[in-house]
Amino acid sequence: MSADGPSDPPRGLFVAFEGGEGAGKSTQVRLLCEWLAARGRAARATFEPGGTPAGAAVRAIVLDRAHTGLAPRAEALLYAADRAQHAHAVLHPALAAGEVVVTDRYVDSSLAYQGAGRTLDLDEVAALSRWATRGLRPDLTVLLDLAPETGLARARGRAAADRLESESLGFHRRVRDSFRALAAAEPGRYLVLDATRAVEDLAADVRARVGALLEPR
Amino acid sequence: MSADGPSDPPRGLFVAFEGGEGAGKSTQVRLLCEWLAARGRAARATFEPGGTPAGAAVRAIVLDRAHTGLAPRAEALLYAADRAQHAHAVLHPALAAGEVVVTDRYVDSSLAYQGAGRTLDLDEVAALSRWATRGLRPDLTVLLDLAPETGLARARGRAAADRLESESLGFHRRVRDSFRALAAAEPGRYLVLDATRAVEDLAADVRARVGALLEPR
Repeated sequence: MSADGPSDPPRGLFVAFEGGEGAGKSTQVRLLCEWLAARGRAARATFEPGGTPAGAAVRAIVLDRAHTGLAPRAEALLYAADRAQHAHAVLHPALAAGEVVVTDRYVDSSLAYQGAGRTLDLDEVAALSRWATRGLRPDLTVLLDLAPETGLARARGRAAADRLESESLGFHRRVRDSFRALAAAEPGRYLVLDATRAVEDLAADVRARVGALLEPR
Repeated sequence: MSADGPSDPPRGLFVAFEGGEGAGKSTQVRLLCEWLAARGRAARATFEPGGTPAGAAVRAIVLDRAHTGLAPRAEALLYAADRAQHAHAVLHPALAAGEVVVTDRYVDSSLAYQGAGRTLDLDEVAALSRWATRGLRPDLTVLLDLAPETGLARARGRAAADRLESESLGFHRRVRDSFRALAAAEPGRYLVLDATRAVEDLAADVRARVGALLEPR
C-alpha cells in the first residue's frame, strides 16, 4: 500500500508530542502553543485520537470498555481512520495555511501501542498510517520519556483508568521501549526528553528546538 | 500490505450477497438460511457494515449525516475496521466450526462504493480489506444486479434515505458497473442474477448453486 505523498509540500511546521500515559504531553502542547502565540505565530493545538468530530466518535469506540473484544486489526484500522480524518480536516489544511501544528500523539503512538504492544506487524501498521495521512510526517517529534510506573501513577491521580491504562505494566514497558527505539532510529527528527524533569525546564528545551526550526531556512 | 492468510483453511462455506440498494439482498440471505436450516445445516446470517457491536458503532459514524465531511480514506478505513471485527468475531469462528456463513455485503461493496464510486485507488482499497480479513474470500458471491432507478425506488419506499442512498444517480450507476466488472473478472466465483425476477425464482437459483457447493467434494 503506497502513500500518495502530499501533492503540495506543507508550508507550516508540524510538531508531534509522543510518550506514555502521564508523561505530560498535553501540558507541553499547551505551553508550546502559548509561547508561539505570544511570538505572533499562528499555532494550532490538536490531538489524536479524537481530534475531529468523526474521530471523537471513533475514539469512543476504541476506549469503550464494552468493546474490549475488539480485534487488533480492527483497533489499528480505527486509529488509522481517526488519523485519516485528522490529517484531512486539520493537519493538511493548517499546514498549508502556514500554521505551526502541534499534536498530542500521532503515528508513533500507533506503532508503539499497536505494533510493539500487541501482535501486529509494525511495517503493516506503519503502512496504514502512511496511507491514512497521505505520507504526512512531523518535522519534529518530541518524546517525553518516562518510566511507566511514574506515568501511570500520575495518570491515575487524574482520572479513572481507561482501557489502555488498565493494561499490564509489562505492556507499558514495551510501549516505552518502542517509543525509544523509534527515536533512536531517526535521531535528527526527534527530541527525547526525560519527563521527570520540571515542566518549565522541559518547555524551555522544546522552545529552543522549535525556535531553531522556525528560523528562516 | 500483505494479508497473513488464514492459518487454518475454513471448513464451512462462505457466501456473500452483493448489489445496490433495494436489490433484495437481505430477503435472499434470509431465504437461503431458512432453506439451509430446513436441511439441517448450520447457517449463520450476517451483514456488513455493523454485523458486530463494535461494527454497529462504526456503521453509525459512517452513515451519520453529521459526518458527511468524512474524508474518503477515513471512510474506507472505517469500513475496513468494521470488516476486520466482523471477520475476527463472526466469519472466521463460524467457518472454522463448519457453518455456512451468509453475509449481506462484503469486500465487493467496499470496492464498488469506495473505489469505483469515489476517488480512491481500487487496489489500495482491496489491500485494506485483505489485511482486515486476513485474506478471507467468499466461496461464492451472489450479485443481485439491478438498475439503480429501480433499486432506489424500492429502498426509498422502505426507509428514509441515508447518506449513501442520497448520492446522485450517476454515483449508483458507477456502483452497479463496478459490481458487474468484479463479477466478470472472476466468473467462477460469482452468480449474477437479474434482481427484477421474482423473489422465489431468484432463491431457487441461489439454492441450486449453494446446494452444489455443499455436495461432498
